[in-house]
Amino acid sequence: MVSGPSMRGLCLFVLGVLMISPLANAQQQSPISLMPIPSSVQIGSGRLLVDSKFSVGSTGYTEPRLDRAIERFLRQLSRQTGIPLAGKPSAPARAVLVIHTDHASKEIQELGEDESYVLEVTATGAKLTAPTPLGTLHGLQTFLQLVEVSPDGFTAPAVTINDRPRFPWRGLMIDSARHFVPLDVLKRNIDGLEAVKMNVFHWHLSENQGFRVESKKFPKLHEMGSDGLYYTQDEIHDLIEYARDRGIRVVPEFDVPGHSTAWFVGYPELASAPGPYEIERKWGVFDPAFDPTNEKTYKFLDQFFGEMAKLFPDHYFHVGGDEVNGKQWDANPKIQEFIKAHGLKNNEGLQSYFNKRLEPLVSKHGKSMVGWDEVLDPTLPKDIVIQSWRGPDALAAAAKQGFRGILSNGYYLDLGWPAARHYAVDPLSGAAANLSPEEKTRVLGGESCMWAEYINPENIDSRIWPRNAAIAERLWSPQETTDPASMHTRMEALANRMEWLGLTHKTYHRQMLQRIAGPSTPEEFTALSTLASVVEPVKDYTREETASAEPTSATPLNRLVDAVPLESATARHFGELVNKFLAASCHDAPAEARLRAQLTTWRENDAKLQPLAQRSFLVKEVSASSQDLATLGEIGLAALDLIAKGLRATDDWKAQQLATLQQIQKPKGQLLLIPAPAIQKLVEAAAAGGACSAAN
Amino acid sequence: MVSGPSMRGLCLFVLGVLMISPLANAQQQSPISLMPIPSSVQIGSGRLLVDSKFSVGSTGYTEPRLDRAIERFLRQLSRQTGIPLAGKPSAPARAVLVIHTDHASKEIQELGEDESYVLEVTATGAKLTAPTPLGTLHGLQTFLQLVEVSPDGFTAPAVTINDRPRFPWRGLMIDSARHFVPLDVLKRNIDGLEAVKMNVFHWHLSENQGFRVESKKFPKLHEMGSDGLYYTQDEIHDLIEYARDRGIRVVPEFDVPGHSTAWFVGYPELASAPGPYEIERKWGVFDPAFDPTNEKTYKFLDQFFGEMAKLFPDHYFHVGGDEVNGKQWDANPKIQEFIKAHGLKNNEGLQSYFNKRLEPLVSKHGKSMVGWDEVLDPTLPKDIVIQSWRGPDALAAAAKQGFRGILSNGYYLDLGWPAARHYAVDPLSGAAANLSPEEKTRVLGGESCMWAEYINPENIDSRIWPRNAAIAERLWSPQETTDPASMHTRMEALANRMEWLGLTHKTYHRQMLQRIAGPSTPEEFTALSTLASVVEPVKDYTREETASAEPTSATPLNRLVDAVPLESATARHFGELVNKFLAASCHDAPAEARLRAQLTTWRENDAKLQPLAQRSFLVKEVSASSQDLATLGEIGLAALDLIAKGLRATDDWKAQQLATLQQIQKPKGQLLLIPAPAIQKLVEAAAAGGACSAAN
Repeated sequence: MVSGPSMRGLCLFVLGVLMISPLANAQQQSPISLMPIPSSVQIGSGRLLVDSKFSVGSTGYTEPRLDRAIERFLRQLSRQTGIPLAGKPSAPARAVLVIHTDHASKEIQELGEDESYVLEVTATGAKLTAPTPLGTLHGLQTFLQLVEVSPDGFTAPAVTINDRPRFPWRGLMIDSARHFVPLDVLKRNIDGLEAVKMNVFHWHLSENQGFRVESKKFPKLHEMGSDGLYYTQDEIHDLIEYARDRGIRVVPEFDVPGHSTAWFVGYPELASAPGPYEIERKWGVFDPAFDPTNEKTYKFLDQFFGEMAKLFPDHYFHVGGDEVNGKQWDANPKIQEFIKAHGLKNNEGLQSYFNKRLEPLVSKHGKSMVGWDEVLDPTLPKDIVIQSWRGPDALAAAAKQGFRGILSNGYYLDLGWPAARHYAVDPLSGAAANLSPEEKTRVLGGESCMWAEYINPENIDSRIWPRNAAIAERLWSPQETTDPASMHTRMEALANRMEWLGLTHKTYHRQMLQRIAGPSTPEEFTALSTLASVVEPVKDYTREETASAEPTSATPLNRLVDAVPLESATARHFGELVNKFLAASCHDAPAEARLRAQLTTWRENDAKLQPLAQRSFLVKEVSASSQDLATLGEIGLAALDLIAKGLRATDDWKAQQLATLQQIQKPKGQLLLIPAPAIQKLVEAAAAGGACSAAN
Repeated sequence: MVSGPSMRGLCLFVLGVLMISPLANAQQQSPISLMPIPSSVQIGSGRLLVDSKFSVGSTGYTEPRLDRAIERFLRQLSRQTGIPLAGKPSAPARAVLVIHTDHASKEIQELGEDESYVLEVTATGAKLTAPTPLGTLHGLQTFLQLVEVSPDGFTAPAVTINDRPRFPWRGLMIDSARHFVPLDVLKRNIDGLEAVKMNVFHWHLSENQGFRVESKKFPKLHEMGSDGLYYTQDEIHDLIEYARDRGIRVVPEFDVPGHSTAWFVGYPELASAPGPYEIERKWGVFDPAFDPTNEKTYKFLDQFFGEMAKLFPDHYFHVGGDEVNGKQWDANPKIQEFIKAHGLKNNEGLQSYFNKRLEPLVSKHGKSMVGWDEVLDPTLPKDIVIQSWRGPDALAAAAKQGFRGILSNGYYLDLGWPAARHYAVDPLSGAAANLSPEEKTRVLGGESCMWAEYINPENIDSRIWPRNAAIAERLWSPQETTDPASMHTRMEALANRMEWLGLTHKTYHRQMLQRIAGPSTPEEFTALSTLASVVEPVKDYTREETASAEPTSATPLNRLVDAVPLESATARHFGELVNKFLAASCHDAPAEARLRAQLTTWRENDAKLQPLAQRSFLVKEVSASSQDLATLGEIGLAALDLIAKGLRATDDWKAQQLATLQQIQKPKGQLLLIPAPAIQKLVEAAAAGGACSAAN
C-alpha cells in the first residue's frame, strides 16, 4: 500500500508545486491545494471552466448511492461557487465531468476495499474512473478541492491524479457520551470526514456520564442512563446510511468493564458494588465496573451485544476495555476470592479473564472485537484489533504477536496540540518502523479522538477542524508527505472551504466572542478578537487542575477558553515572521515593519479591551492575559528598538525581560499566550547584539 | 390602541434611558436594549441573576403551545448565555420566572386579539402575566432581550414593563416564488419575526417565475410551474403550526390576474393568449394574465381557492391584483369586445370587473379578500383589506371609503434603504394623520416586503435583518418612538442577539467574502472586508439597469453586491464621526485621530487588495471601487491636513475634489461607496477655512 519509488518521485514533484505559497504566487493562478495530498499528481496545462453549464454524467456500474453522490456533489459545487447548477446527473455524452465506476463495493463496507481512483481534468472536460463507488466518492471530493476562483471564473486546473490510501483504517472517534452530540452535528462532521477521505466514524456511545443508545432489550439503559439524551434506533439507522453514502464505516463502542456508571443506573446488579448509581456529572476515572465474576454480566452483555450487533452492521465492534481503576474489585471480597480461586494473580488478570469471556460474545454475533490497549492478551484470537492510546511501540508489540492495531496515541484532538505535532505522528514510526512488511500490514491505520469533557454543539467543530485534516493526510497520503509548512497552507485553505459543508468551526467563534463581549463598540469587539487570536486553551490534561471550581457536565462552556481555536494561526504566523527576521540577521525591513505593526497593536490592545472587562465577567476573567499581551508588545518593541539602533541589550535588561516572559507564559484564565516564545527570541537577539542571527 | 398621555410620559422617560449609548455608559452596566420598545418601562433597582438554576413555571391557563414556548424559551436562553438549562417547565412555586396566562386565545389566531403582557423583574425573580398566550409569547421575547452579560454573570435588570402593540397587523411578506426559499430558511425568519413581535407572515406563493404550492386539485400548477421547487401541503401545515406556535398568522397570496405566467404552463387555457407558456426566467412585469372574460377562469379559481382556503386557516386570503400591463387583453379582440359589451371603459374597468367576480369566490370559502392597491373599487364589500404599495395617502383614501388597509409603501426591504428611512415611515402619516379616530382604526398596520429577484438562502437573512426590526418597532411601539440613533444602537445589539436564532445575516457575509477572495493571506482578506464594509448595492430598482447582462433566475448571486449588507454600519459610524468633528468646529482631537486612522486605512487598502484582484474575477470586478476608496482616503486626509494647519483650501482645489467625489459616487460593479458624502463635508469644511463648523 505504500507508494513505490516511481510514485515517490512524483510525490516530491507534487510537494514542490504545492509548497509555492499563495503569497509567492500572488500575481498568478492559485496553486492547487489538495488535502490529503494524492499518491500522484501530474499538472497539465490550461484550466476547466466551471459555470452554470457544468454537468456530471456516469457510465459503467451505477447504484442509487452514486446518483445521490452526484447530486450531493453538484449541490456542494453550487454552494462553493455560488453558481446555480442543475441538481441531477446528465447524459454522459454531454456531461463535462464523466464518471466511470467499474463494479460494486461490498453491501456492508469492509476494511481494505479498493478505494482508488483516477481523475483527469483537461481544459475541456474531466473524467473520473474508479474500480468501486468508494473510489468514485473520493475522486469527487478531490474534484471539489480543485475548483477555485480564478481570473476567468471558477476553474479547475488541468491535472492527472492517481490516488489510493496508504492505510485502510482512517477514522475519527467522537465521544457523544460525556456530552451528548446531536445527530445533525454528527452528520456535518461526517461530511467533514468525507471531505478529507477518512473512512471510519468510531462512535463512543457509553460512559460514566451517559448511555446514549436506545436499547429495546434493556430500555433502562437509555431511559435511566441518559437524561433523555440518546439516539433512537431509527436515528442510528439513519446515521449509518448517511455515513455509508459517504464511504464511511460506523464502528460503535460500548465501553466495558470500566467507564460504565451510566449502565448501572438502570441495572445496578451488574456492577461490582451494590449501588444505587447515578449518572456521573464529573470528569475522570471512576470506580464503578462490571462484575466479571457474575454470570449475569455475560448473559446481559451477550443479549445486549446481540441487539447492537444487528443495529450496527459493521464487522468491527468496540468494547472499550480501558482504564479500570479496580477499586470496586478490591473492595469486593467475593471478587478477590474469585481471583484467587481462578489463579488470576490480580485485577489485570481478572480483566484479562473478562476479555476472554467477552470475545466469544462478540464473535458469536459475527463481529471482530476492537479494544483499547488494555484488552491485549496473547491468548486472545488474532482476529481482534487493538486501538492504541499508548503509542506506536505498543502497536508494534501487538503486531509482532500477530494482532492488528490502529494508532490513536498522538491523535487526541482534545489535548489541544498544534496540527503539526499530530502530523508528525506516523503509525509506522518508532518500533513499528522496524516491523517486517507482513507485520506492518497489521498496522491498519489510525483514529483521531475527540473526547468530550469540554465540547458542546457550539465548539465541537472547532475542536475537530481543521486539525483533523492533518491526521487524515497522515493516514491517506504517502509516508514522505511530511512538510508542515505545506500542510498548514493547505489546511487553512481547506478550513475555509469546509464551511460550505455546514461545519461551524469558524462561524461560532465570532458568535461566542459576541456573547462574551455583550453589546460593544466595533473597537472594543476588535480588541477582544485580537486577544482571542493569540491565546490557546491550556494543553493536555491541565484544564481540570487549573479550574477554579471542579468542572462538571453542567459547567457552562461559554468562556474565552471555550471559544478560541485550539491552535492560533496568528501566533504561528507571527512566530514564522520572527524566524524570518532573525534568519536575515535582523536585516529585513519589511519583516521588521510588519513585526512593529503587530507588536504595536498588541501593546495598545488592552486599553481598548478594558471597558469591556468592566462590563462583562467573561472578559474580566481574561483581563490578566490582555495585560500580558500589552506587555509582550512592549517587550517586543523594546527589543526591536535595540536591534534597530544596533545596540546590545544589557544582561540585566535581558534577565528582567526573560523573568517577565516566564510569568507571562503561565496559564491565566486557563489560557496560554502563544506568541511569548517568539518574543523571547527577539529579546535574546537584542541581547546578542550585532550577532543577532545567532539567537535564531 | 395609541398610548395615553400618562403612558407617553413613561415612554419619554424610557427613551431617555435607552438613548444613553453603550459608549457613554462604558464603565457601568449596559443599558437595557429592547426592540421594539415597549409601551411602558419602569426601571427598578438591582438585577436578576440568570444561572444554571434558572427555571420557569406557569399558572393559570395552560396549553401544549405554552409548554412548547417555555421549552423554546429555555433553549434560546441557554444558547444566548451558553448556560446549560433544564429544558422543561418547573413547578411554579420554585420557579425563578413565573408565567400566568389568563385564558386561551382563538384556535385560529385572529386579527386584533389581545397581545398585551406585563413583565416584572426584580433582583429575586420575575413574573410575566398576560390575558392570552399571545401576550405570554411576546413577554418571553422581551425577557430574552433583557438578559445580558454583566460584571456578575448573565443578568436581567429589575424592571416593570407594560406592553401592547400599536397596530394589530404587523407583518413580513416573503416572496418565495421568484427564488424558491427552502422551508428551514422560512422557519428561521419566522423565529426572527417572533423576536421582534411581528404577527403576520405573508407568503407570496405564485409568480411568473414559479408556482410554489402543491395543489391536489390542479397538480399541473406545481408539477409544471415550479421546476420541482414547491412546498408540499404537509410542509405548509407544518409551517403554519410553526408560525402559530410563535403567535404568527400565515396569510397566503396567490397573485391574479397578472404575475401569473407559472400558472399557465400547466393551464394555458386560463390565459388571455393561447400560449404555450414556459416558466419565466427574467425579472419585470410580463404580459400573461388570466382571461377575465372566460367563465372557466372563475370556475378554476373557485375550486382552487376552495382547496387553498382549507389549507391556510387564516381568515385573510390575498389575491394579489397588482401590475397587470394589459397587453394580452389589448391584443385579444374577444376581450376588447367584452369590455365594450359590459361598458367597462378600459382594462382597469375589466380588472375591476374581475375583482368583483373574485371577491365572492373568496368570501364563499369564509375568507376576507386582501389585495394590492389596484383591487380597490368603491363597490367592493368593505370587508376587503388593501395592501398599499402606493403609500399612506392611498391608505387614507381607502379608509375614508370605509376600507381597511395595511401599509407596505416605504417598507420594501429589497430597495436597499437605510433602516432609518424605513423607520421614519408611519402608517398614520401624510393624509392618514388627518383621518378621524374611527377611520384611523381602519389602518391596521403594515408589512415589510422581501421581493426575491436577488435573494437566495445565503443572503436572504441579510436582506431582511436587522433592518426589518426597525419596521417591526414602527408597527409595535408608541408613535412617539422615533429617535433613529437609539433605534440604530438597539438594532445593532439585536442583530448580534438574533444570530442565536440560527439566522445567518452575519455568518454568511464572511463565507461569501471568502468565496470571492479564494485562498488569501489574512492581510488580503482584511482588505476585501474593509472594502466590503463601506459599499452598498445600488438602490431602488437600478440593479437591472446597471447590470452588464440581463439578470435571470439562473444568474449566480455570488458577487460582492450580493454579499454586502444593504446598509453599511461602518459608513454610518464614519458619517457620525465627521458630523461630531465638524460640530466641534473641527476642534476635537480624539475624533480627528479616529478619522485619520480610518482614512489612512482606506487610502492604503487598495494596494493590499490588488493581489487578490489579479487572482479572482470576483475581486477584479470591484477593483474600481477599491481604487475609489483609496482616493476617498487621500481626499479626506488632505482635507484634514488643511484643517489641522488652519489653512483654507483654494476654490480650485475644492472644485477638483468635488468633481472627483462626483465621479466616485457613481455606481461601479453595482456598488455605491457610501462614505463619499461625508468626505465631501470634510472638503467643504477645509474650503470654508476657520469657519469650518459652518460646513456642517
